Parts: sequence; C-alpha cells; structure tokens
Amino acid sequence: MPQQNNKRLLDKIKPKWEIGYHFSEEAAPEKWIPATVPGAVQLDVMQAENYQQPYWYADNVKQFDWMEDYYFTYRTSFPRPDLHPGQRLCFHSKGIEYDFKISLNGTQLLEQEGMFTYVDLDLTDQLQDINELQVQIKPIPKVAGAPAYTPGTDTYRQHARESAKPAVSYGWDWHPRLVTRGIWDETYLEVRSSTYLTASTVTYQLNEELSQAQVQLNLEGKALAGKHYKWSLTTESGQIAIAQEGILSSNTESISTQLQEPALWWPSGYGSPTLYTSEVTILNAEQEELDSSHSKVGFRRVKLLMNEGEWDKPLVFPASRNRAPASLEINGRRIFAKGTNWVHPEIFIGLITNETYEKQIQLAKEANFNILRIWGGGITNKESFFDLCDEQGMLVWQEFPLACNNYTDKASYLAVLEQEATSIINRVKAHACLAIWSGGNELFNAWGGMTDQSLALRLLNSLCYRLDPYTPFVPTSPLNGMGHGSYLFYDKTIGTGEEVFQWMQRADNTAYTEFGVPGVANLEVLKQYIPPHELFPPKRETAWETHHAFGAWRKDSWLELPFLEEYFGEITSLEDLVRFSQLTQSEGLKFIYEEARRQKPYCSMALNWCFQEPWPVAANNSLVNWPNILKPAYYEVAAACRPVLASLRVPKFLWHEGEDFICEPFLLNDTYDPIAPAQITVTLLYDGGKSLKVTTWTCPGAPEFQNSQGSKAQLPLPDMHGSFFTVSVEVESNPAYNSRYTFMYRGKNETGVKPGAAF
Amino acid sequence: MPQQNNKRLLDKIKPKWEIGYHFSEEAAPEKWIPATVPGAVQLDVMQAENYQQPYWYADNVKQFDWMEDYYFTYRTSFPRPDLHPGQRLCFHSKGIEYDFKISLNGTQLLEQEGMFTYVDLDLTDQLQDINELQVQIKPIPKVAGAPAYTPGTDTYRQHARESAKPAVSYGWDWHPRLVTRGIWDETYLEVRSSTYLTASTVTYQLNEELSQAQVQLNLEGKALAGKHYKWSLTTESGQIAIAQEGILSSNTESISTQLQEPALWWPSGYGSPTLYTSEVTILNAEQEELDSSHSKVGFRRVKLLMNEGEWDKPLVFPASRNRAPASLEINGRRIFAKGTNWVHPEIFIGLITNETYEKQIQLAKEANFNILRIWGGGITNKESFFDLCDEQGMLVWQEFPLACNNYTDKASYLAVLEQEATSIINRVKAHACLAIWSGGNELFNAWGGMTDQSLALRLLNSLCYRLDPYTPFVPTSPLNGMGHGSYLFYDKTIGTGEEVFQWMQRADNTAYTEFGVPGVANLEVLKQYIPPHELFPPKRETAWETHHAFGAWRKDSWLELPFLEEYFGEITSLEDLVRFSQLTQSEGLKFIYEEARRQKPYCSMALNWCFQEPWPVAANNSLVNWPNILKPAYYEVAAACRPVLASLRVPKFLWHEGEDFICEPFLLNDTYDPIAPAQITVTLLYDGGKSLKVTTWTCPGAPEFQNSQGSKAQLPLPDMHGSFFTVSVEVESNPAYNSRYTFMYRGKNETGVKPGAAF
Repeated sequence: MPQQNNKRLLDKIKPKWEIGYHFSEEAAPEKWIPATVPGAVQLDVMQAENYQQPYWYADNVKQFDWMEDYYFTYRTSFPRPDLHPGQRLCFHSKGIEYDFKISLNGTQLLEQEGMFTYVDLDLTDQLQDINELQVQIKPIPKVAGAPAYTPGTDTYRQHARESAKPAVSYGWDWHPRLVTRGIWDETYLEVRSSTYLTASTVTYQLNEELSQAQVQLNLEGKALAGKHYKWSLTTESGQIAIAQEGILSSNTESISTQLQEPALWWPSGYGSPTLYTSEVTILNAEQEELDSSHSKVGFRRVKLLMNEGEWDKPLVFPASRNRAPASLEINGRRIFAKGTNWVHPEIFIGLITNETYEKQIQLAKEANFNILRIWGGGITNKESFFDLCDEQGMLVWQEFPLACNNYTDKASYLAVLEQEATSIINRVKAHACLAIWSGGNELFNAWGGMTDQSLALRLLNSLCYRLDPYTPFVPTSPLNGMGHGSYLFYDKTIGTGEEVFQWMQRADNTAYTEFGVPGVANLEVLKQYIPPHELFPPKRETAWETHHAFGAWRKDSWLELPFLEEYFGEITSLEDLVRFSQLTQSEGLKFIYEEARRQKPYCSMALNWCFQEPWPVAANNSLVNWPNILKPAYYEVAAACRPVLASLRVPKFLWHEGEDFICEPFLLNDTYDPIAPAQITVTLLYDGGKSLKVTTWTCPGAPEFQNSQGSKAQLPLPDMHGSFFTVSVEVESNPAYNSRYTFMYRGKNETGVKPGAAF
Repeated sequence: MPQQNNKRLLDKIKPKWEIGYHFSEEAAPEKWIPATVPGAVQLDVMQAENYQQPYWYADNVKQFDWMEDYYFTYRTSFPRPDLHPGQRLCFHSKGIEYDFKISLNGTQLLEQEGMFTYVDLDLTDQLQDINELQVQIKPIPKVAGAPAYTPGTDTYRQHARESAKPAVSYGWDWHPRLVTRGIWDETYLEVRSSTYLTASTVTYQLNEELSQAQVQLNLEGKALAGKHYKWSLTTESGQIAIAQEGILSSNTESISTQLQEPALWWPSGYGSPTLYTSEVTILNAEQEELDSSHSKVGFRRVKLLMNEGEWDKPLVFPASRNRAPASLEINGRRIFAKGTNWVHPEIFIGLITNETYEKQIQLAKEANFNILRIWGGGITNKESFFDLCDEQGMLVWQEFPLACNNYTDKASYLAVLEQEATSIINRVKAHACLAIWSGGNELFNAWGGMTDQSLALRLLNSLCYRLDPYTPFVPTSPLNGMGHGSYLFYDKTIGTGEEVFQWMQRADNTAYTEFGVPGVANLEVLKQYIPPHELFPPKRETAWETHHAFGAWRKDSWLELPFLEEYFGEITSLEDLVRFSQLTQSEGLKFIYEEARRQKPYCSMALNWCFQEPWPVAANNSLVNWPNILKPAYYEVAAACRPVLASLRVPKFLWHEGEDFICEPFLLNDTYDPIAPAQITVTLLYDGGKSLKVTTWTCPGAPEFQNSQGSKAQLPLPDMHGSFFTVSVEVESNPAYNSRYTFMYRGKNETGVKPGAAF
C-alpha cells in the first residue's frame, strides 16, 4: 500500500532484477544483465557493458543516445511464497518511467502510460511454483513532426508534448539530452493479509477563525468491511487530540470529527511547523492487527490573494482585468515568499534518496527560504520529499509535468494526464507544505504556446478543484503580473542593455517567480569533469560546451565570456574566471532578492532560477553545484533572505572615476515582529583600509511585516587605486542586520580590472 | 420533458393559478388574487390591487419595493384527470424565480433554490379526487451586512452575491431596483405515457479537417429500457443523413454514428447557418408512438485563438504571460466578432415571448452583428432564444448569472451554482450558436473583486470542461488584453479628458467587449413616460432621474448635460437635446466599431454596451429603446458593421477654425472574398452644398479578411458658416461601401453651435 511508515506484520521482498534491451516489442533481449532497482536503464547498461565512467565526465553522457528507441525489459524470478490461508502476494511499485506493460508468467497484468501512478497488483491467483515477473518499457515518447535533436537547441523537448513524461530529459539549457527510463522509485513484492489498506489520508477544513478543524480520515482498502479500526491523532508532545474506533462498513470509508483549537503549522520564518501524528490500525474480531498506517498532519490554511494595492489602482478606460493574485497568505497572515526553483537533484531520478532530499531541503532552509517551486519540467518528487518539507516548514509550489511546450488537446494525452494528475493530487494534497498547484512552466509564453483554452490546463484546474479545492491553482507561471527573467547580469536584449540593477528597479511585478544570474562552477568541481587539457581557456566543442558553458541558451550562455571580459578585461587564469563570474552572480542575485523585498507590499515573491542542478554544470544560474557544493552566491542569497536586514538600493554595479555614488537605505522586515529604531550607517570601504561615510540614517524601526525606507544619499567617489570597493551598512547594536555590497570601480582610461585586483 | 417541439400524444393542461402574499413562511395569504403564468408576482398584485399603471410610467416602479421581504404563494386546483392504465400526470415548469417549495395537497414534493433548473415532478401517486398544487416563493435573497438600498448607488446588487439570482434586478445604472420573482417560463400539467423522455440531445465532434462528425444521440427518460427507438437526421432539403433504429437497453442511452461531409453551420456574414433536423421517436412493441423529440443540429467548430501577432511580440524581461486569446475561429476561419451586449428585453422576464426574441435577433442581424454577449447580470434566455440564434447564424457568448460582485466561496452557494450551471450547460450546449461560456461580468475588476482563485469560477470552468469541453470558456470579461469602456463621448477621467476618437485610437486591446456612448431616448418615447410638466428642461428628482438620466452611473450619467452644453452651448428645446445627444452617440459608436475593425488583425472583437433595454430608459448606451424603437445610433452602427466598407480614421469630432482636417482612409474587409481595386474619394461637405476634395486614394483593393490602409491626408479647413460639416468617403462603382461622418466646427470666439444649426 502506498503509505509510508506502515507497520507491516508480514514480509516485504525485494527481488533481484535483470534487464535486457530489444528493438521491437516482440523480440527477446539478446542478453540479460543485472539491474539495480530503483535505478535507470542507462546505468544498468553502463555498468554491464563497460561504458566510459562516470557518466558525468567529459562527453560520456553521449554514450546513451542510442537507447532512446529501444525497448527495455526487467525481469525477476521468484518461487511461490509460503502464504497462510487468505494471505495475498502483491507487487507494488511507486514509479516506473514511463510507458510499460507488466506480465506474470507470460500473462499481461497491466499496461500503463505514466510514471506517477503507483502500481499495486495482487499476484496471488496467478502464482506458479516458480514465477517470472516482467516489466517491459517502451521506447521514449516521440512526436511525429517534432524537431530532430540538434545540439545547442532545446527544441527536442517538443517530443514530450503528447506525454506526461517530464520534458527536461529531452535536454534543457542546463541538462543534456538524456531521456531517462526505468524503475525509478521503491518497488517490491509484499505478503499481505486479506485485509489491507490501499489509501489512508487525513484531510481537514479549518473554519474562518482557524479555531476549529473538521478532520476527516479517508480509508480505502480490500476486505475492510466488518473490520475494526482505531484512529488516533497525537500532538508533538504525545497528547491524544483525537481517538476514535469503530467498525468499518465498506472498503471506502470516511470518518469525520472535529478538533478544537488545533496547533497550526507555519512555514519557516513565521512560526513552528507543528505536525500531529495520525495512526490508524485495522483489526480483526480477535483484535489482531491486520494493517496500519501512520502519517503526519499539519493544520494550515493557504490562500493566494490579490497583491496589496492592486485593487486600488486607478481605473483607466478601456479597462482590462486586474492582475492575477500572487500573494500567499498562510493562516490569515500574508508572507513574503522567498525561495527558489527546484529541479531534479539527480539526472537519474532513480538515484534520488531520502538523504538527497534531506540535505537539499536543509540547505534551502539555511538559505532562509520558505518556498520551493517544483518546476514543471521535472518530476513530482518522491514521498519523503513532502514529509521533509512538512517537517521543515518549507512551502511547496507543485507543478504538473508540463513545461515550455504546447501540450496537445488529443483525448489520448488528456486521459494519461488525468490519470497522472489524479495520482499526484491524491498523494500530495494531505501535506501541510503544499501551497500552490500549477499547471506547469511558461505555458502561456510564445515558446510554450498554450492558452487559457488549452484542454490540458482546463483539465488540471478541474481536477484540482474536484480533489483539493482549497489549495490555490495557477495554470502556469508567469501569469499576468508575475515576471520570469532576466537570466543575465548584463542583458543586451533589454533596451540598450541593462545590468540586473537597472532592470530590477524598473520592474514592477507582483512576483518574481524566476530570475537568474549565471556563475561558473566552483574550481574544484570543474576539475572533476573537465579534462585537464580543456580546463583553460574554456572553449567551444569541449567538455565546457557539453556542460553548458557555451550555446546552452543564447550564444554565450552560461559562461558569458564576452560580458566578463567587457567588465573585467582579459581573463588570464581559471581562478580569475571563477572568482569574477561568481562575484557577478553573488552581487546580482543579492540585489534582485533585496529589491524584490524593497518592492513589498506590492511585490510578494522572489524565487531565483534555480536552486541546484542534476549533474555538474560548468556555468549555470544554480546556487548549489551538483552534488551539494555551495557556490558563493548561495551565501549572499542566504544573507539577502534574512528575515530582517538593512539593505541598499544602488543604481549600478560598475562605477567610474568622478561619479557620485548614490544609494537609498532600507530596513527590511518580513517578520510579524516590530523592529526597534536604530542608527544605520552606510560606509564606503576601499583600497584595503580606507573608508568614507556615505550617510547615517536615523531609522525609526519597522512595523510588523513592513519595511522602512531612508532618504537617498549621494557622495562623490574618492579616487581609488583598487578595481573594487565595498559598501557596508551597519545597524547600531544589531550587527545581525548588517549588510555588505561589492562594486567595481574603473579609473579614467582604464578597461577591465587591474592585475591582481581583490574584493 | 424539457425539449421543445415534442410531438405529444397526450394532454397538456394549463391550469388557472391564483397568488397570495404573506410575511412569514407559515402564514396563509390574507387573500388570493388571479395570477398570470408565466408572469411576475409584481404584475399580479399590480393588476388586482389597482396600482398606478403602467409600471414604467414616471415613478410607478417604486410601488413594488415593499414586496421584497414577502413570501408569495401560487396555487391551482384541479380534479384527478382520467388517466389510462400506466399513464402519468406530471408537473413541468421551465422556470420559477427564485427560491421555492412545491407541494401537492399539503405534502411537500420539492424545495429548490435556482430559477434555471427545470422542475419536472410526477404527481400521479399523490393524486386525490380534487388536488391543490402550491408553489411557495421565498423572499428575495439578501446578504447580512450588504449595503442597504440607496437611490443613485448600485451597491444594493451585493445582496445577490450569495445566490444564483441574476443581480440586475437589484438595480443597475439603467435598471431600477425591481427584484422580480414568480413563475417566469412555460409551466403546465401533462398527461404522459409510462414511457417518456426527459432529455434528448444531439452532440458531436468534428474531425480536424471538418470532413466527418462523430454524432451522438443522448437519451434520458423513464421506462425506456426495452422500447424501440427511431432516430433520423435530415438536411434542410429533407434528405436523410442519418437513420437509425433499435431497442433501448436502459433509461440513459447514447447512440453514436458517423456523418461524412456534414454541411457546416456558419455565423452571419460568413456563410449559411445550415441546420439539420433530428427526430427521435420512442415506440412500444406494437409500434405505437410513446414519445418523440425534435431538435435542430448545426455542425460547427469553435475555437478561441490567440490574436494574430500576439505570439510575435518582442520578449522583454521580466516577462509576464502573453495576453489571453480573444480571436474566434469558426470552422477553421477566424472571424471578426461584431456584436453587442444583450440585457433583458423586459424587466419582467415572464413577459418575454418568442416574438420578443424574434424581433430583437432580427434587428441584431440587420445591424450586421454576428454575436450577442448575454451579459451575466441578466438571465440565461428561454429556449426559443437559442433556436432563433441557431437559425439566424447569431453567435452567443453566454455568461453565467454572476456580475460585478465578489461571489462567495460558501459551500451552500457553490451547490446551488453547480445545480444551475449544470442545467444551463446541458440545455444550451447542443446549440450551434453557442460560441463562448463565460463565468460572468467584470468579476476580475475592483468592483467585482473576484480572482482566478475564486471557487465559483473554478467550479464553472470545471463544469464546462466536464460537460462541454470543446466550447471555449473564459472566467469573465474583461480578461487581460480585452477592454471594457469607456462609456462616454467625452471622458474627463482619462488623462486630461478625451473624446471617444482619442482613447479609441490610443487603445490597443485584443477585443473591445464593452464600450458605450450614451444617447437620449427618442422624442416620442420620452413623452410616453415622462409627465409633460417634467419633460423640459430635464431635472433631477423627476422621472428623468428615475429613468436614469441623472446620477445613474457617475453624477451626470446618462444624460451628460454638462458635456452637451460644453459642446453645443445652451440647449433650449427638448428637440435639440435629443438630436445633439443622439448625434454624439451615433458618431461616437460608429467611430469605435470602425476603429476596432481598423485595428484588425490585432483586434478581433467589438461589442457595444448595450443593445436594448428592459424598460424605458431616458438616456442610455442602448441602440434600441424599449420596446424595439430604434435610436439613430442603431443605423450608424449597422453601417459601421457592414462586411465591407470604406472607413476614415479621424483624430477628433470637434474642429476649430484655422485647423487642418486630418484623416486616414481604409478599406475594411471582414469577408473571405478579395475586394477589387477602386478609387476612393474623400470629400468635405459644408454650408449646405459646398464641397472640397480632401484626397483621392487609389486603393489596391483588399485581400480575403484583410483591410487596406491609405495614406494620411491633410486639408486646411475652409471658413464655414455652419456648426457642422460632413465628410463623405465614396468608392468608385461600389456605392454600397460608401461612408459619411459628421463633425462639429467652431469658429473663433464661438462657443456652442449657432442657433438652428443643422447636420
């Protein structure tokens, strides 16, 4: 049964699997090789057939291309287990990617397209003395007429537009073409009693005052009728909040009760993520336990409200609609959603473990994030992901597997999507962390090409309404008012070219749900997969390009060498390349997060593109290099997302001799605590020890969840020898609120930076 | 049964009704008075109790205010009919407004909130020798805390925000507070055989090439199993396209077949509205007819596409979504949707007859309209409306009964809305005229206050997706990109004040789904309901105000006397008031329709606010005075909506001595015929006979569904004596394409117009 942490009286069997490949559905594999489950077909072949390893080194990833059009068949053999009377042997899999048939002893039991719908098959009646279970996986989905694969473009993803397979593996600007398949989540044989649960969820509805919850235990299973159930809900300190027992009358049953004054679950930064424990036990007449289920329950109410000020905008005819709501309210309090976009932590999703999630969610929390947008190009995560987000107070914006494609209106696709989305909704909806359902990524932009009329999105809205009506649903991101981009420190496509500092101050969005600044990977990381002779200078048609430093998005992405040389002059070492690129990423992202917060209350969200990466990317917008190696920008973003901080609005990064330095100080407060008055001093630090006071602001403090803004200050830049200077913002008696910013300085007739320039 | 035109072998009985009112649910009426069915409770009381009549004269409408909080009970008495064995006596009503209980001989049979769900009750088993059927109608819906009625404001409508009762009767800028109730549509007793149909619809899906239809006959009824059915679909010329017969196996059955090369239904201006006739007969074993049903079927495919050019807009970061699709495509061809907003044709909806619809739809067609937006403040029309639109090729944008309110998320409201919307969708979806479902009017604007997250709109999207997925659904109008307003010839709230001519050229909307210019009612119409002593000059607190000439929207709406006097000087007669006001309405609306068409292909729709009115309005944006009296603007709009015409873009209406007249000629073509080249001459006509050529354009013609644009022309205005001048646009050898425009001329030091000035 699908629930985690179930008390099982009986056996769970993880059989040994083999795998083979074949070019037609009917053909038998020429050979069978050992398979790891969960895993991926590519990894099994790589291990067995002496491929170049590791797969992420240099160009090794290209070795897998041939597999796309092959069938792969898993098989396992097992003797009939010793079943007691009434016992059942079931096959359970939480994920098989993507389109497959399952047979036992040559008889087909199931054909399924879709990797997010759990497989649960009762094998008992087909068992022989020796049994062979086969899982045959079809070739990857392709669409007639969609573009062939061309390195350096990402149009190959269009082959995913008629399937519910996440599009990312067809290749993205940070993900190679590597279309994964295989058994990718927990999979086993299980001996069960004749009575067992197939679903057990706790749902609830809070009243308007949040003082009372109507709690419902929803049970589904086999042979439940007539059995006894015991249900308890206990607090974190072990007190019993709900205790009910009785006799079940059918195989689908809901038990409803009221809970007074539930302790509320809060997202990180706004309170404690309080979780109750629900335990259900099913017993027979002799009070013997037949099955049981544990889960966590967090009580919270989520709304997506109009941004503050939006309704008050002046009416100008012809009037269009007001912009879409983008302000999250949890338990009656608006929050500022600070977070990031989550992509696969591993290119081979079968390699993702609880520990993978645990580390990364911890890192997200330590970056002062309170929300993760689970990007629609990737998978819906495994169960432990949601459990961990519940525990950590990390909100989840969950997209369905649609991204940057015009998904078809064909009935066959809609049927698969309905099956997959229903499974996803029913699995995730009981989690306290769930904040937003979203149809997918960038579907209403030209490169997506869908509209409000697209049947897939109307279906998803309808399913979410039917199955989980009180969780907000957005058809895609960006909606009107939200912003995606830019993704460069200096973007030539905006007007006459703009730094992050300029476009972000000009922008007036309700929510910045994607934005990025690329940074090269850390030095020691690069050395692990770029062959030594290719390391410096970085060139096209080397591992740098395979790993997305060139031609990954636009021509120069994501290394952006022309920009780096325009700012920093000729770059003569890998060390300089790394530190200059990472400096712009750090300062750029810091500015965007802080500026989004300075635009509060009108703006309500800032989520950078992207948090991590599924394999080593040589230059990327990510904060965390694969696997879990922090880039310097991570620390700057974490500082920019502190609940309270002093912040500077500054018009640009690159300053020239003779200019006046300009800045506006802010005290940013995302908490519901008022912040006390304080002197805030802005100081320019340069040439290794010199300093000049820019301004002192007698800050009146900041009310609950409100910022405070000081006056604009101006100071003629001193003559400097160095190519960089720092500005510190210090809060009297509250050094935890202090901030620091690094800027470039360019003397007359200078280009680039002086040799050896430090910051 | 709900279908029209059913062949009935048995009796239909229209009993005599009485009505009485009482202040509590339990109380009996003090007296019973005759009732007209269909009708309205107000009309029955008015007739019986010697109210001032007609209800639309002067302030007579205020006589009904007291009734809002009373219960009204209808009753009718009838003897047991002489039923043959197996026959049933049923009560059928197509509409009872709004929240009611039905009882027979003191036993409650039904309690229903909702006026759009047909009532169909089998009374047979409860019949006595003498029977009394009662329909008790509850007081009007009111919401605790919603604003009390204040004349001159329209906030009273907020009492409708927790019900599915159309909000308009709570008062609007052109509708008095007159909250109607009563039996408002066809209602009767009927003797039926034991087998009868309760629903019979024909649905279909066309293939991509439109060459084949998968046609489905959907039957529901009583005791159908085992009965024989015959189904035929015949063409307009009487040829049989489908003929099927067989035995039904259940009471709910779908019979499916294919039709090759169906003749397509086209909207007015794009082809013939071809309709097939479907006939179903249910027979018993002896081949005796038990029930039958006729309906019309038009084969067409509707899509709502992105407007041309929208996907090609340059990408600017941060990027929001592209604007919502607003371009209707019928049978694979984009059309330019020219039409109007439809409100109640009668304040008492029980008075609306087939003839009412017939006249008005004919008028709409003669105005060259191809679409009616059935505004969400009003009702969903009776069945014959949709039949007539099918026949006339008039597309229907059908809104659900939500308008300008923040409809509640409460479960009780959502349940009523689900019931009502389900009834509406199932009734209307089989009509070829249906082009768009819409959640309602102006819900995403500040005065509506709903958002994409509002559960009522998510419910409606979900229901439309489930029951009628291939008809476009929009949650409301305006969506992003669409425009509502302005509603004035000269709007002081736009910038420093703008004429229609200015804001409309500045506007850049995908669709103008509401816009208006007010005009006073026709002279003879005004005299019918404004008492003679109040007629001139028009004043506040007279019948002029009751009939919306003052304080109806903003202070001066809809008469707009300050504007009229600013343009035309002191107005000294009712005749001058009417002609000046109607001139601005005519020229303003003509300009908007033509400018919307000039903005093609980017713009795809123009629907003025509003077509007609439900009672006599003294000054209003309507084209047609109640009842069916055409205002001059009707004719100008009809001319502006001709499929092909020569058109002028002119920067303004009011010209001053010494200025250069400026214009840009266009040839507008909304047809799929190419238009031949022609000389087009623009001539200025003034002072009763003088003329000056402005320009001659050698127009290259216009391709299919494309406009052609000439060069801007400029001419110093001649000195004129008159206060008005005309500009004619003449198309050589195609006078049907000619156009004429009237402008004002003001000499130096003049204010207003010269006495007796003619145009």
